[in-house]
Amino acid sequence: MAETTFTFDPEGSAASARGFAAIGVHAGFRPDPERLDMALVVADEPCAAAATFTTNVFCAAPVRVSREHLDEGAPGQPAYGCARAVVVNSGIANAATGERGLDAARETCELVGEAVGCPADEVLVASTGVIGQHLRLEPFAAGVPAALAALAAPDAPDARAEQGLTAARAIMTTDTRPKYGAVTFAGDAIGYPGATFTVGGMAKGAGMIMPNMATMIAVLTTDAPVAAPDLSRALTAAVNRSFNKVTVDSDTSTNDTCFLLASGAAAPDGPAFEPGTPAFAAFQEALNQLTCALAREMAADGEGATRLITVTVRGAATADDADAAARTVANSPLVKTAVYGHDANWGRVAAALGRSGARFNQEDVDIDILGLAVCRAGLVVDFDEEEALRRFEEPEVAIEVDLHAGDASATMWTCDFSHEYVTINGDYRS
Amino acid sequence: MAETTFTFDPEGSAASARGFAAIGVHAGFRPDPERLDMALVVADEPCAAAATFTTNVFCAAPVRVSREHLDEGAPGQPAYGCARAVVVNSGIANAATGERGLDAARETCELVGEAVGCPADEVLVASTGVIGQHLRLEPFAAGVPAALAALAAPDAPDARAEQGLTAARAIMTTDTRPKYGAVTFAGDAIGYPGATFTVGGMAKGAGMIMPNMATMIAVLTTDAPVAAPDLSRALTAAVNRSFNKVTVDSDTSTNDTCFLLASGAAAPDGPAFEPGTPAFAAFQEALNQLTCALAREMAADGEGATRLITVTVRGAATADDADAAARTVANSPLVKTAVYGHDANWGRVAAALGRSGARFNQEDVDIDILGLAVCRAGLVVDFDEEEALRRFEEPEVAIEVDLHAGDASATMWTCDFSHEYVTINGDYRS
Repeated sequence: MAETTFTFDPEGSAASARGFAAIGVHAGFRPDPERLDMALVVADEPCAAAATFTTNVFCAAPVRVSREHLDEGAPGQPAYGCARAVVVNSGIANAATGERGLDAARETCELVGEAVGCPADEVLVASTGVIGQHLRLEPFAAGVPAALAALAAPDAPDARAEQGLTAARAIMTTDTRPKYGAVTFAGDAIGYPGATFTVGGMAKGAGMIMPNMATMIAVLTTDAPVAAPDLSRALTAAVNRSFNKVTVDSDTSTNDTCFLLASGAAAPDGPAFEPGTPAFAAFQEALNQLTCALAREMAADGEGATRLITVTVRGAATADDADAAARTVANSPLVKTAVYGHDANWGRVAAALGRSGARFNQEDVDIDILGLAVCRAGLVVDFDEEEALRRFEEPEVAIEVDLHAGDASATMWTCDFSHEYVTINGDYRS
Repeated sequence: MAETTFTFDPEGSAASARGFAAIGVHAGFRPDPERLDMALVVADEPCAAAATFTTNVFCAAPVRVSREHLDEGAPGQPAYGCARAVVVNSGIANAATGERGLDAARETCELVGEAVGCPADEVLVASTGVIGQHLRLEPFAAGVPAALAALAAPDAPDARAEQGLTAARAIMTTDTRPKYGAVTFAGDAIGYPGATFTVGGMAKGAGMIMPNMATMIAVLTTDAPVAAPDLSRALTAAVNRSFNKVTVDSDTSTNDTCFLLASGAAAPDGPAFEPGTPAFAAFQEALNQLTCALAREMAADGEGATRLITVTVRGAATADDADAAARTVANSPLVKTAVYGHDANWGRVAAALGRSGARFNQEDVDIDILGLAVCRAGLVVDFDEEEALRRFEEPEVAIEVDLHAGDASATMWTCDFSHEYVTINGDYRS
């Protein structure tokens, strides 16, 4: 059987998979009329849907309402069910808004449902922006019909693809660039001859957002036929190895949300992908590739970032140890400022490893930075500092650790810690 | 019975308690001949001694050797025994130096022991500064005799007190000011009529240090009569509510060390303070006051700090919950940059609480910043932003949280996160 190949489309989006349209408009949440601030993703038919949400105790109203509209899982657990549309606004997070915030999120879903022609509980909602402000419904009342009208009357042959990219721009906050993409694979080798499957989507940045707090939000769509419980399983697996491996400033927001909708439109007559089959494995791989690409983009575009940092820990005793070690290094302000300063400072990496809780002996630890051996068996190694400075000119910095304590490994993505981060988040007002 | 009063002496030091001398000299670890870089604390007689050390797996050679010279406790556990002298150098941390580093630390103790006239295992050693560099013995060979000569021939009536302050200056690294003090209490109300007891000491800053890493070090002395196991118990209790409640950048160094020596010289004939007695309680209180004062100084002098931040969490379900909530808020870069920006941004405090793992309902949470109510029952409260800006001019910022989930509370000290922190730790070299 031929191997399945996966093709990444950097111009793909939530509109790439068959059965979906996506668009961003200026609805009026933000004062600048040029700034897109509402995204709408609509499926031709009701779809299987799954989501992961923030685990923060302070969770925003749209998180609660979207969770209600899917199966009620415990907070922190995946939720799944059926959905027809996703609406996301930027500018106001609808967090810390109490009952009135819940009402606003529910009314938003009713408004979208009426316009699209589906029950309110088939609408999922997410918000990002300032907390403690109440969400007005007027922008939705204007923006949703405008969005649907534009989707109904595309004005150019490639309008659908371009509309998908506007959706990604509409959910941005302090992101400096939109984040989108799609992964495509053929059905020939997995029992669906002639079919082509797509997983596409958009995301917005990790890092809490000026002037208050915000969120990571992703909306993903696929035309593969996957039942909701299996979709949830695949999404959880993908999120755990992608978005959950990104840290910008170690803060978890009140609004973090990742939606995945599956139309099945690429194989309308075929059976659903079942876990354990080659088809499901191919779908999981495509989903993993997309979410990892979006996660890396998020880290690279962290607030004030000048470098993407990839921290890989190998040789850990357990997967938890590997995760703790990689996460502690990636969250260390001292490691992040050292990268900003182009300083291959392995001592700070060692100190972070040592306090991570991972079990190892310091005499066993090897550390490479930028591909240069800087620590062997826990001891300093002379390395070419000039060569290190040259390699720091690249946009990506690799920190690789081998604990020599077992076989588990983990990778985390983060960014450096710059003066600009302090400026963005300090917002000096006095 | 009269109440015992405690008097804080801001000019006190490790030389304040009877039976001890302390001095700082330039020994030659640093190139600048004006910069003091070695401190020596010497007791007239062998003393009860206790210590707490870093829990970092990457622990430095002096930590291992000092632990050997006290009772061998498990790493992270307190150690106690007998000591006559403490030597601390700044400039080189003697960390990540392998067997050669251990030999250097042991030889340092031998050298000091010979000069002072005690066995090497009655000498405790600590180092702070650059990691991965080997410690030379020549500076000790020159500095220790010079220090002892100066202590033997004080050139002014108040020379002893001034010498104690030079010791505090000699252990500084990126600290902008020395940290010292003493607390005195009378024995009249606790069964030691006519006696006066002193607990004094010095400390150096939390925050890892340019260009590599460093440490928190404290050396405390008392003339109260306390046996080593009880001294250890008191020290652990005091450290847990003082130095362990300080965070500058969430990093734990390889060299963190706190020593406490008790000469008993203030009551040479009296019985030792026994746990459970008013005398022991008074000693514990004095020790707590001293360590909290030094801990607050450390936080206020964190790298790049412009404000001391005190985070108090009340109403937590358990002490662990209170500690986790306060610690997560105090470590949040977003909270710390907000304080730097004079922004009473309670949303970032709420987000940190929400991801801390502490159990509470968001609808119950009250938050005050700078004494202003900014959040009640999880919802935004209108507050006087002009008044907040005025209060941000004070050197200390209070963040107070009530989770309304129980009776436990905790306080943490930290500092704001400034451009200067990034400059200090970024050390941009390209």
